Amino acid sequence: MPIVTLITDFGTQDGYVGAMKGVILSLSPRTRIVDIAHDVPREDVAHGAVVLAQAAAYYPKGTVHVVVVDPGVGGKRRGVVVDDGRHLFVGPDNGVFSLAVPAPRAAYEIASPKFRSKEVCPTFHGRDVFSPAAARLASGAKPSDAGPAVTLLCRLARPQRGQGAGRVIHVDRFGNLVTDIPGHRLGSIQNVRALRVSWPVCRTFEDVARGARVAYIGSMGTLELAVRDGSAARAYKPARGARVAFVK
Amino acid sequence: MPIVTLITDFGTQDGYVGAMKGVILSLSPRTRIVDIAHDVPREDVAHGAVVLAQAAAYYPKGTVHVVVVDPGVGGKRRGVVVDDGRHLFVGPDNGVFSLAVPAPRAAYEIASPKFRSKEVCPTFHGRDVFSPAAARLASGAKPSDAGPAVTLLCRLARPQRGQGAGRVIHVDRFGNLVTDIPGHRLGSIQNVRALRVSWPVCRTFEDVARGARVAYIGSMGTLELAVRDGSAARAYKPARGARVAFVK
Amino acid sequence: MPIVTLITDFGTQDGYVGAMKGVILSLSPRTRIVDIAHDVPREDVAHGAVVLAQAAAYYPKGTVHVVVVDPGVGGKRRGVVVDDGRHLFVGPDNGVFSLAVPAPRAAYEIASPKFRSKEVCPTFHGRDVFSPAAARLASGAKPSDAGPAVTLLCRLARPQRGQGAGRVIHVDRFGNLVTDIPGHRLGSIQNVRALRVSWPVCRTFEDVARGARVAYIGSMGTLELAVRDGSAARAYKPARGARVAFVK
Repeated sequence: MPIVTLITDFGTQDGYVGAMKGVILSLSPRTRIVDIAHDVPREDVAHGAVVLAQAAAYYPKGTVHVVVVDPGVGGKRRGVVVDDGRHLFVGPDNGVFSLAVPAPRAAYEIASPKFRSKEVCPTFHGRDVFSPAAARLASGAKPSDAGPAVTLLCRLARPQRGQGAGRVIHVDRFGNLVTDIPGHRLGSIQNVRALRVSWPVCRTFEDVARGARVAYIGSMGTLELAVRDGSAARAYKPARGARVAFVK
Repeated sequence: MPIVTLITDFGTQDGYVGAMKGVILSLSPRTRIVDIAHDVPREDVAHGAVVLAQAAAYYPKGTVHVVVVDPGVGGKRRGVVVDDGRHLFVGPDNGVFSLAVPAPRAAYEIASPKFRSKEVCPTFHGRDVFSPAAARLASGAKPSDAGPAVTLLCRLARPQRGQGAGRVIHVDRFGNLVTDIPGHRLGSIQNVRALRVSWPVCRTFEDVARGARVAYIGSMGTLELAVRDGSAARAYKPARGARVAFVK
Repeated sequence: MPIVTLITDFGTQDGYVGAMKGVILSLSPRTRIVDIAHDVPREDVAHGAVVLAQAAAYYPKGTVHVVVVDPGVGGKRRGVVVDDGRHLFVGPDNGVFSLAVPAPRAAYEIASPKFRSKEVCPTFHGRDVFSPAAARLASGAKPSDAGPAVTLLCRLARPQRGQGAGRVIHVDRFGNLVTDIPGHRLGSIQNVRALRVSWPVCRTFEDVARGARVAYIGSMGTLELAVRDGSAARAYKPARGARVAFVK
């Protein structure tokens, strides 16, 4: 059975997510729909990109990932299908795929009438474009059936791979700060400097006292900063993109 | 495989929704359960009615929609199955179906012991009445097996179809204001008067500057009012039911 | 088709729940994943224990319940599979199963490499230990395949069964206060004393006026305290564990 996952900023108090699921099930009744996250902060494309990167790779080959964080809906930005050779991705071409798919094998604009509803509401492409497109792909259509091949506009900055410095790219529910510094770069470093203070590098939260700062290699394989049983975000109020530096 | 959708005001921090799903899967193991929304504001029947209307019609024929926004649980209001000829609806007879099913083909009180759990908790009909009823319907029981035919009490006002005026019927997660004015009534109107200010009628958000007011035909086919990248609800604090008038 | 349910404190704004689902579907493609609740308050093991107890028993025999409320992740606490003869439970041995499974038939530490991902992130056992373990069990592995039999550390206090007194064990979304006093103990008692005030015992909310206090036998079969159309939690600010006493 094909799998379609959903990431949106639609929340769980309206019928928008439910309408998308209905469209998918009507066009592709055997599809399994999987909710990844619907409380992406409103219009926060960078946040949606991280959520996708946290989850996408764990799914079986052939999974279709739909991401609707789409401040430009109905405007000039294109709707696209992205193929990385293992999964398909459906959503707006606004950079939301750039972390999960740093090097797409191919991308196609969603132009074919078969990939769109007959009437398309300019403010709800999640329902009228991305859901039918995902359903067609889940039912076996080829990505190239969607429309002309295009080159993606990856507006989001790629994670920096600089020596000994990086940035905060995500703040999660727990107030943990996810950086773009790959864990293997840490070597035997024992402290990290960020947000004007020092963070000891440990294995997990329990290695420090309650309320203490801790740095560790997180679940995305990159350095993270946290306050045990607390919130690094609340304590240190980082801007996304705040600089993090190694300290020997 | 039969589909049962769920709309509740139970939130996602307790076990209530999970208990409902367990009851349904125990009685009808092949059923596909689809979450539409669980963060309907508490006891807000009018909100639940809009959520159902936003999503229900997109589902395949035969889908069973369960709605539990039920301030009168265990009291005098009846539990019902509503049939509109295409979908079945299960929940309290408190008006929550009145937008999605303006003209029911038939409705039945849930009275049969086969449609209820052996013991019914007076404060949780979602688990002990509506879930078993939905499971029976998903397994092929006829709506009329539920109990005696009844006439619904549609307590919610139907959308007004007046000339050139209507009301705000819903505030969504984004602070967008959904009205009951059908889009086709707009004709060539270029401005709408509401909440003491004027809203230019456009196609989508991107047609106005960030922070500007915009009116457009929304995903329910009715006029909506928004502030681009902002919140019309926060900016203008409408009461639900606030009046909206056309201006030529 | 096997069923795996999920209870976490991961929220719905990050990719953590989505990563877990991907792992499960990759290892056990036919599994049906059911969301119970993801907004358990952060690290609140006692809350998670009640959510599980509210929902678990309603699922078909053979269901695997995964609970990840896990402040000690990656530290000394063990990961376990618990068998109660009807369902299997997967998660940290921190007491989170103690209400739903007061008397486990058997428990096993998750030690086998087949029950864990090749690389285990010390801060995300939900993805790298509990999800693979659940997937193996859903695919037919025996609980004893997980690792050595262990005795659970049930750190949570069991519900008190004292005469005429009990405690608040849970505050739900509605601000209703769930106690550990079994309903059958109430007999003909007409009032309950709690939080310095008296609560009349009724059948359901509608038996009292809007805004009035009401005590009733709730959906867990125990005494609950509520304010009709209001919030007992907000009105009376109980500590969890606050004492409740019968008054004749």
